[in-house]
Amino acid sequence: MAEKKMVEAITSRDEDFAQWYTDIVKKADLIDYSSVKGCMIIRPYGYAIWENMQKILDKMFKDTGHENVYMPMFISESLLNKEKDHVKGFAPEVAWVTHGGSEKLPERLCVRPTSETLFCEHYSNIVHSHRDLPKLYNQWCSVVRWEKTTRPFLRSREFLWQEGHTVHATPDEAIDETERMLNIYADFCEKSLNMPVIKGKKTESDKFAGAEATYAIEALMHDGKALQAGTSHYFGNGFAKAFDITYTSKENKLEYVYETSWGVSTRLIGAVIMSHGDDNGLVLPPAIAPVQVVIIPVNQHKDGVLEKAREIADRLKDKYRVKIDDSDNSPGWKFSEYEMKGVPLRLEVGPKDIENDQCVIVRRDNREKTFVKLDELEKNVEALLKAFADNIYNMAYDNMQRRTYNCTSMEEITRKLSESGDGFVHAMWCGDEACEDKVKEVTGVGSRCIPFEQKEISDKCVCCGKPAKHMVCWGKAY
Amino acid sequence: MAEKKMVEAITSRDEDFAQWYTDIVKKADLIDYSSVKGCMIIRPYGYAIWENMQKILDKMFKDTGHENVYMPMFISESLLNKEKDHVKGFAPEVAWVTHGGSEKLPERLCVRPTSETLFCEHYSNIVHSHRDLPKLYNQWCSVVRWEKTTRPFLRSREFLWQEGHTVHATPDEAIDETERMLNIYADFCEKSLNMPVIKGKKTESDKFAGAEATYAIEALMHDGKALQAGTSHYFGNGFAKAFDITYTSKENKLEYVYETSWGVSTRLIGAVIMSHGDDNGLVLPPAIAPVQVVIIPVNQHKDGVLEKAREIADRLKDKYRVKIDDSDNSPGWKFSEYEMKGVPLRLEVGPKDIENDQCVIVRRDNREKTFVKLDELEKNVEALLKAFADNIYNMAYDNMQRRTYNCTSMEEITRKLSESGDGFVHAMWCGDEACEDKVKEVTGVGSRCIPFEQKEISDKCVCCGKPAKHMVCWGKAY
Repeated sequence: MAEKKMVEAITSRDEDFAQWYTDIVKKADLIDYSSVKGCMIIRPYGYAIWENMQKILDKMFKDTGHENVYMPMFISESLLNKEKDHVKGFAPEVAWVTHGGSEKLPERLCVRPTSETLFCEHYSNIVHSHRDLPKLYNQWCSVVRWEKTTRPFLRSREFLWQEGHTVHATPDEAIDETERMLNIYADFCEKSLNMPVIKGKKTESDKFAGAEATYAIEALMHDGKALQAGTSHYFGNGFAKAFDITYTSKENKLEYVYETSWGVSTRLIGAVIMSHGDDNGLVLPPAIAPVQVVIIPVNQHKDGVLEKAREIADRLKDKYRVKIDDSDNSPGWKFSEYEMKGVPLRLEVGPKDIENDQCVIVRRDNREKTFVKLDELEKNVEALLKAFADNIYNMAYDNMQRRTYNCTSMEEITRKLSESGDGFVHAMWCGDEACEDKVKEVTGVGSRCIPFEQKEISDKCVCCGKPAKHMVCWGKAY
Repeated sequence: MAEKKMVEAITSRDEDFAQWYTDIVKKADLIDYSSVKGCMIIRPYGYAIWENMQKILDKMFKDTGHENVYMPMFISESLLNKEKDHVKGFAPEVAWVTHGGSEKLPERLCVRPTSETLFCEHYSNIVHSHRDLPKLYNQWCSVVRWEKTTRPFLRSREFLWQEGHTVHATPDEAIDETERMLNIYADFCEKSLNMPVIKGKKTESDKFAGAEATYAIEALMHDGKALQAGTSHYFGNGFAKAFDITYTSKENKLEYVYETSWGVSTRLIGAVIMSHGDDNGLVLPPAIAPVQVVIIPVNQHKDGVLEKAREIADRLKDKYRVKIDDSDNSPGWKFSEYEMKGVPLRLEVGPKDIENDQCVIVRRDNREKTFVKLDELEKNVEALLKAFADNIYNMAYDNMQRRTYNCTSMEEITRKLSESGDGFVHAMWCGDEACEDKVKEVTGVGSRCIPFEQKEISDKCVCCGKPAKHMVCWGKAY
């Protein structure tokens, strides 16, 4: 059989980050474009990454008492209209269904952009007594937001996500839940995606439509732009009042419930690409890599080579996701292919290795080569994957540290960004929306969040000089 | 705390099967209705059943080489129109999106009723050489069909399903795949849902829109009505021609590909309810039951009872899905509740049992009580679950046997159905669509499938008396 054509080089990351990103999503076979503008096809390799994320998150949700449900994908216009702030935020970007078959619908339906209104309607049917509380729900589904400009994984008209929705008897319980889920997201990003994040609260102007408070985790991409990786919202009893969701308390009083919602999406795949990828392609965190170890038999037609490769695969396959590539493609082609796909470890075994009772393992992150005695195989694979995960976390962390600037004036912000490139700006803020807007207008960075971990960089607002209330983390956002 | 109200009795199954079904889906907390007509909310207990089905099927698909992908939910009108038979079948029942936000779309989009057209468009982008074949894909998603009359799980405007889509170099390979997946569905129904099915081919008039052949599995519900539980379609190269999907063969010739698709849906939950349920509620096959063993501590406030219940749960929980109900509800309430929810085994343990180093296990299917010595707990649970699964399969099988009638004339069909109730009618057919229609018109039963296992009941068509080509399985369908 003719060999497949060599993996084509991709655009250099430092030359054109946006084009580099687009090259990777296509050449690592993550997505294909559909003829419907702004919608993407998630191909097997991309979907397997999402499935691995789902498995880990789903277990974290269930371990903390959440149950999965499924709500309809359609929301009637009157239902969407019930909570005023919510509809104001979402109506401009929903897709409207007007006909079923050839018949015009009596009321148009939108395809869910998010499901608060559906959950609220359901709560009002099933919550009656304090004994019915709390309800801790989650749903895995796709949602639609009619975006003008789209990019695979980062912003598309349809995307896959999970949306948690919970309902509680008291504000304290609901606030605890909001924080708990933000912490779960942060843990997931740090431990499973090897991506450091900043936890904080959104400013008033940047809250979710209908929320009393929005918490977020923000990550810094390799190019210095910020990416909102997950959000967790506290609704107070605003939705409860709009949807009349009440319960009878232990004291036999009728009370409104308190709600939360929280979500992460396939956007996290974009975050992983832009945190860890390099000029050879993807670099995937072991916890979510569809293949953790690819085994390449060298001189595979020589006696015993394929057998040894299979024996090694058998030893590893219960604990790791392993693939043998025994195709007729050249070793050079295979090396490029699995580098493009970001497989953490490449294990090579050929006649010489077999003679020496060893194999060669090459790390994707730094191309470090280790000769491994076969009787120490499992121990070495474990240690190398651990070192790999630590190293990509540390590189992303170093990037974030190097690109975080403490600034005390607008001029300093502008100078820092132009001298050292995009990044997180830490600067004080008086709490006035006008100052928030002005910082963005003048320096180009918007408020990402008010980090939970505050530093007192100065006591004055970076914009107006009045007494500062918070340190804000500012950045250019994806 | 006040006790929850007793589980209300449901309508008797023999009195009003339809009402009995509706009572169960609500009272076993499987679904709630949404204000959007024909759409349902799948509640945690219902969704957990679906998740268990998904886990088993997904493994069966992956073990046979299939990969999961995700296609967009929108299909443009021009894409849907490409294959003429397909659009004829689906256009009357699709939901149309006409606006994004406040803007009218340049072309309307339908919400996928099924995704053949999307897969075809994708194949035409990614299939070029014989080396790219086969592609064996599956997707888990929801689809929309604008049905006039709807019933939870059985027929709803939106439902959850999986749709497999594969593309092959030759007709033989594609036909093998179509049959292989039908067999996987049949195995799943028999082993995991404990529900016998008939495998067969649909007649021409009953094929999927655009298919060359449709295979199906048909199950007989307790009331004698037939339910199509899964289908597998062979498309030949019809879609390939409409979408211009070609590949270069080993002989360097341009050839069309051959395709299949296959699917099962949340309808299977309806099938399980109507196969095994009784007047006390659901009866769930152990393989998919969210809780396989519910542990009820009796006199739980007595010393050591709760501790013993927890010790038992700990011993079982690695192998089985176990729940302890230590709420303050009375044992009577708990017994009814878990009968309604179809939990296969109820394990009771109280002070007397502890004295005798035993517990009591009650089977949901026949209420048989077994005193089990605690040192033989695991062995007994395993045996009881096995006996339970076998018994509900055998009951469903007996129902199907008892309700299968071999008939050689239209009069016999009518008489049998009126004497013995609805069921499967086995009768010969000449292959003429006019006879198929007439049988339905006169006797009320339509062709369900041409079973793979043929019997020669006579050599003449049951309708026209001309030479028979096939034995057909006829029935009234859900």
